[in-house]
Amino acid sequence: MKIAITGKGGVGKTTLASILSHIYSSEAKKVIAVDADPDANLAAAVGVPKDEIAKIKPIAEMADLVEERTGAKPGASGGIFKINPKVDDIPEGFGYQLNGILLLEMGKSKFAASGCYCPEHALLRRLLKHLIVERDEIIIVDMEAGIEHLTRGTAEAVDAFIVVVEPGQRSLQTALAVKKLAMELGVKRVFVVANKVRNNEDLKFIKNNLADMTLLGKISMNESIVESDISGLPSYQASTQAVEEVREIKKNLEKVV
Amino acid sequence: MKIAITGKGGVGKTTLASILSHIYSSEAKKVIAVDADPDANLAAAVGVPKDEIAKIKPIAEMADLVEERTGAKPGASGGIFKINPKVDDIPEGFGYQLNGILLLEMGKSKFAASGCYCPEHALLRRLLKHLIVERDEIIIVDMEAGIEHLTRGTAEAVDAFIVVVEPGQRSLQTALAVKKLAMELGVKRVFVVANKVRNNEDLKFIKNNLADMTLLGKISMNESIVESDISGLPSYQASTQAVEEVREIKKNLEKVV
Repeated sequence: MKIAITGKGGVGKTTLASILSHIYSSEAKKVIAVDADPDANLAAAVGVPKDEIAKIKPIAEMADLVEERTGAKPGASGGIFKINPKVDDIPEGFGYQLNGILLLEMGKSKFAASGCYCPEHALLRRLLKHLIVERDEIIIVDMEAGIEHLTRGTAEAVDAFIVVVEPGQRSLQTALAVKKLAMELGVKRVFVVANKVRNNEDLKFIKNNLADMTLLGKISMNESIVESDISGLPSYQASTQAVEEVREIKKNLEKVV
Repeated sequence: MKIAITGKGGVGKTTLASILSHIYSSEAKKVIAVDADPDANLAAAVGVPKDEIAKIKPIAEMADLVEERTGAKPGASGGIFKINPKVDDIPEGFGYQLNGILLLEMGKSKFAASGCYCPEHALLRRLLKHLIVERDEIIIVDMEAGIEHLTRGTAEAVDAFIVVVEPGQRSLQTALAVKKLAMELGVKRVFVVANKVRNNEDLKFIKNNLADMTLLGKISMNESIVESDISGLPSYQASTQAVEEVREIKKNLEKVV
């Protein structure tokens, strides 16, 4: 199963990605959790201790690795570099192991807009393709709303795109934009998860604004999750209700994929 | 006054930017509000009607304009293009006028990481520099947490960087990262605004985690603002409390700048 989770900033992509990773790993499945959003912190959400997080060096920031694999220094532009670098040893070599989850931090060199290309993007794109197209593990990618950094071949191999929304027009507009982009890239299955749902009104509002996207389920507005960001508790430990709701989402996902 | 507003996705950058724009314009000051975050929707927040928003074409997506000004097609990489294109007519030519606020949509070609360069980034960088360095209006920029797309000269000319945070470790980590980046770019004044503050505990948590950054003020957790994203009401009309709190923030800002 290859799952890409997207949506507007702050909607709860990382919460969903981390809980889903833990549910799969609790079923003894091998999971690779990929933090591909420079604005997220999947490491903290899956439960990597604070002092360990500081030691994780994101792939895009490993200048030596970028140069070794692509033949060009990070940030080089216009020069010649390999667009098909070797990456298959990177997950095990540079990932962080935690309770059956292998965490990969893609790093801060934000994937450039299509056409804007430099060595670290070449490396990250190739790595993402390797994970999604060539691996057998459960792959869960926490990514930005901009999904332009997926090449067509990679996007087609994603089993499910999940766009997280909250009650509000803005995150729903982002969802529609993601859906459009995903379709252009050849993705067939784009689903929605509603987060921060306070009541039936909220859920109705979201359902009424989904256009033709399928709602996989909801995660209720949850003070425990808000508090967990203050206390530093991993999401899956913060709220049994949220974990149960994500279990339901996973069940619905498996019915349709 | 040149203000750049940043922070983690979903913290309320756009809410602050839109209310601040309206307060300045209500004082008969000329305001240029710049939407430089592809994940934001400043147009809706300042009150541009829904059917008008659809007609606003972001600068980075105007392929003809990009080519005319830079000499190269959008997305071109490695080729030759002007890094100093003419931009001074762009705000008036392509902005949207609304109650004394001139709104500029920068668009979806996300500014590439430093070193990754293409024609639309050259155009947007130059335009941002023009606005911040050469204009007399009040400039309010709603931007991504990644501020790498500001060149040194532009960053130095910003009067105040405001990082919006919410009660939680993650947005505070982003704030510290922004502060570090801003310092490297020669910015001296980085301030913090606390948003979604539920109680004194929340405020205390934020104050305790600010390191040496100055807190300009707070915006309380506000159901009316949440509701306004559902109803489509502009932020400054949604809550008089939030407007009053932003007035206080503006007053504190003017004391220190």
